[in-house]
Amino acid sequence: MIHPVILAGGSGTRLWPVSRKSYPKQFSALVGGGTLFQEAVKRVTGPGFAAPIVVTSNDFRFIVQDQLASIGIDDAQVIVEPMPRNTGPAILAAAHAVDADKDPGAQVLVCPSDHLMGDNAAFLHSVGAASSAADRGRLVVFGVKPDRIETGYGYLEPAVSYSGASDGARPLARYIEKPPRDIAEKLVDGGKHLWSAGIFLFRVVDLIDAFEGLAPELNACVSRAVNGAVSDLGFSRLNPDAFAQAQDISIDYAIMERADNLSVVQLTSSWSNLGAWDAVWRESDKDVQGVALHGNARAYDCENTLLRSGSDEIQVIGMGLKGVAVVAMRDAVLVTAMDRSQGVGGAVEDLIGDGVKQATEFPRRHRPWGWYETVSLGGRFQVKRIMVRPGAKLSLQSHFHRAEHWVVVQGSASVTVGEEVQLLTENESVYVPLGTTHRLENPGRVELHLIEVQTGSYLGEDDIVRYEDLYAREDVS
Amino acid sequence: MIHPVILAGGSGTRLWPVSRKSYPKQFSALVGGGTLFQEAVKRVTGPGFAAPIVVTSNDFRFIVQDQLASIGIDDAQVIVEPMPRNTGPAILAAAHAVDADKDPGAQVLVCPSDHLMGDNAAFLHSVGAASSAADRGRLVVFGVKPDRIETGYGYLEPAVSYSGASDGARPLARYIEKPPRDIAEKLVDGGKHLWSAGIFLFRVVDLIDAFEGLAPELNACVSRAVNGAVSDLGFSRLNPDAFAQAQDISIDYAIMERADNLSVVQLTSSWSNLGAWDAVWRESDKDVQGVALHGNARAYDCENTLLRSGSDEIQVIGMGLKGVAVVAMRDAVLVTAMDRSQGVGGAVEDLIGDGVKQATEFPRRHRPWGWYETVSLGGRFQVKRIMVRPGAKLSLQSHFHRAEHWVVVQGSASVTVGEEVQLLTENESVYVPLGTTHRLENPGRVELHLIEVQTGSYLGEDDIVRYEDLYAREDVS
Repeated sequence: MIHPVILAGGSGTRLWPVSRKSYPKQFSALVGGGTLFQEAVKRVTGPGFAAPIVVTSNDFRFIVQDQLASIGIDDAQVIVEPMPRNTGPAILAAAHAVDADKDPGAQVLVCPSDHLMGDNAAFLHSVGAASSAADRGRLVVFGVKPDRIETGYGYLEPAVSYSGASDGARPLARYIEKPPRDIAEKLVDGGKHLWSAGIFLFRVVDLIDAFEGLAPELNACVSRAVNGAVSDLGFSRLNPDAFAQAQDISIDYAIMERADNLSVVQLTSSWSNLGAWDAVWRESDKDVQGVALHGNARAYDCENTLLRSGSDEIQVIGMGLKGVAVVAMRDAVLVTAMDRSQGVGGAVEDLIGDGVKQATEFPRRHRPWGWYETVSLGGRFQVKRIMVRPGAKLSLQSHFHRAEHWVVVQGSASVTVGEEVQLLTENESVYVPLGTTHRLENPGRVELHLIEVQTGSYLGEDDIVRYEDLYAREDVS
Repeated sequence: MIHPVILAGGSGTRLWPVSRKSYPKQFSALVGGGTLFQEAVKRVTGPGFAAPIVVTSNDFRFIVQDQLASIGIDDAQVIVEPMPRNTGPAILAAAHAVDADKDPGAQVLVCPSDHLMGDNAAFLHSVGAASSAADRGRLVVFGVKPDRIETGYGYLEPAVSYSGASDGARPLARYIEKPPRDIAEKLVDGGKHLWSAGIFLFRVVDLIDAFEGLAPELNACVSRAVNGAVSDLGFSRLNPDAFAQAQDISIDYAIMERADNLSVVQLTSSWSNLGAWDAVWRESDKDVQGVALHGNARAYDCENTLLRSGSDEIQVIGMGLKGVAVVAMRDAVLVTAMDRSQGVGGAVEDLIGDGVKQATEFPRRHRPWGWYETVSLGGRFQVKRIMVRPGAKLSLQSHFHRAEHWVVVQGSASVTVGEEVQLLTENESVYVPLGTTHRLENPGRVELHLIEVQTGSYLGEDDIVRYEDLYAREDVS
């Protein structure tokens, strides 16, 4: 059996404003279909595959749960990293989480969750070739034929060159991580080297052996973190003390540059890591002028341009643009020359440095119980739209500085105010006076939507006293 | 005395999305300071000027009232045109509204409300020169020295050329309305011709004489419209039957191309009619790279670019742009090559043709009693933020398809629901069941802000039965 491991803990800024720290690009639909994460999971669901293992961070665990549920995946194992430690420990933890005693030949297929795969059948064909090599004890890395110079990728040198439509695994002669431009140019021109797609396949036993041989300390820490994991609301939380001691290192540096049983398989599907907006434009459907429209957008006399509206409520118009990407969201608009889009991350770093909330947060904040967004904000009031999932429950809480009006607009709410518990349905409301303990719960089988009108002298999220919380939170989230 | 006449009835689309049919550019602050309309009024307030006369359309009367109040102008006469009839009838109506029996030498200074004046002192100096000429029976038009070829303006040929810093009035030899490009080029190259700024100064008696001589029918209709005007909530509403019969004609065609007592005064202030986004960029403060930032916007390696955020809540970033204008609002984003910005009107026409609401309307809708905006919209609910001015009152109304919850977040409300009248203050709420007659009023001295949560199967603005209305409205507004 092949156990798919989906890496979903990363967060990049180069696709800002769609990708932000609180909700990174893998959880967005960037080029048609579902979100990148959902597409990555669906790609490895089916005959020959065990239930997926998702490795993610504490911040994204409920997004992962939510996005899995909405594509009908209910058997995934979600491993929560207590802190980020790069791909080496993440992949090793997933390997340790597979019960190799039961299935000594168990294989692991590691897939990033933020990449685009053009042809799933071709991908599965490559997985087959890699699986055969892994059966022979090889650690397989998937390679992509370069179509341009890129300095941000690792380059793979097969011992025997791929030519034409040939496939199958080849021994890996050399791994060159992120070469400088002149070297990258030579590698691409030579026609022999492949980009590393960050996709790996190996037997569990072989990977653990490799780590034991090359990084025994790391293997010991991660093994303890997995053995000491606790199950919590369906998540497997790695032991934080053990995981904290694991070295922060990518699998590329830990294994791919050093092991002697590496092989490469050329991916025959088209592939993109959607590293920046120019890549999103390249992978989008375009008209003959090279114009890609996402959502509610119109182009007049544009060329090689991407126009993206993040909502039906935003009308985007581009006029006379050449080689420009426009990404409009309710709270942030990016307009960049296509060939400068790699630099967006730097601009976002500036915003983070200045404490600009749009740099890292979305108007809609995801919480264990659902989400909320501020829809109107005045001097002494704030209006929020709140969604509570079926069965979910907010903490029992009170506020020092604000009173709240709740109006249920969809579904049913069980509301506790002081000692009183009442059931509210659509079009009913309740008032929560300042200082009174209260709790909100969705006892129903459909989403609960309500409008909360807060009034008071201070409306910050940190004006909260929490008495009981289903989700074991210590912060204000 | 000089009676300033401010023309504020027009509505253009070339500055979309800031300028829309429901709230055109003169009511927005485009380049620093107050709105263009407010700046136009303030420019002609002070010694030597009588109270301003504002000519506007029915749709904008409350915006005019509101913007005048907020700059402390309480003595303006606001003339409401029942239908648009171009500048000829509008200016003539204002002239008839001045009591020339009391002041036979009364002069009228006609100013568009959507232009930018760089130097108010220089403008007033030119007004002085024009006023002297008007005292001698001349109809004076203000001219601007061209600094580029423009085919959208009228060109003035003074009998004697202006040269250097010379000023004073000159007889007008010829008026050339919107010449083709080759002619415009010759006129600009010749160095003698001036653009018409659409600003005029004349004695009331002379203008009425001119219309009586050149367009006696028109003068008769407009005279009847003014004599038959009714006063309504502080507005002077021209008689609609009489005004409807007036010819739709600009003052340029009616008088400026045909009268024989015309003079020109060269405006020594810099001036712009802000005809499109390239003009707004030209008139904005710019850094050495030619980058103009309005509001919450940042530029990285941009040149000759305008970045405008319509709200503190929208973060705009421009990167590597050259000669581009970015205008971001909550519901619409325009990105245009600067040299294509004249074409924005055409794109907006397309949107209008397709019934796109952002083409003509803003999220915030202005009403006689204040404004409202939809802040959240779901399948069966809508949340509005509503502001009611002190003393204002919504109509007594009911709805067939929706119930409403009102929560007062600022100020006080007198609320009628069915037979009951109650006073609500901040943090109090009331429920209006479906079908029940209700009315909302602000009895206080500060703005009333409330949040309205509507629930129901149909939430359109046209689900309203109106029983009594202070503002004599027949539509659903």
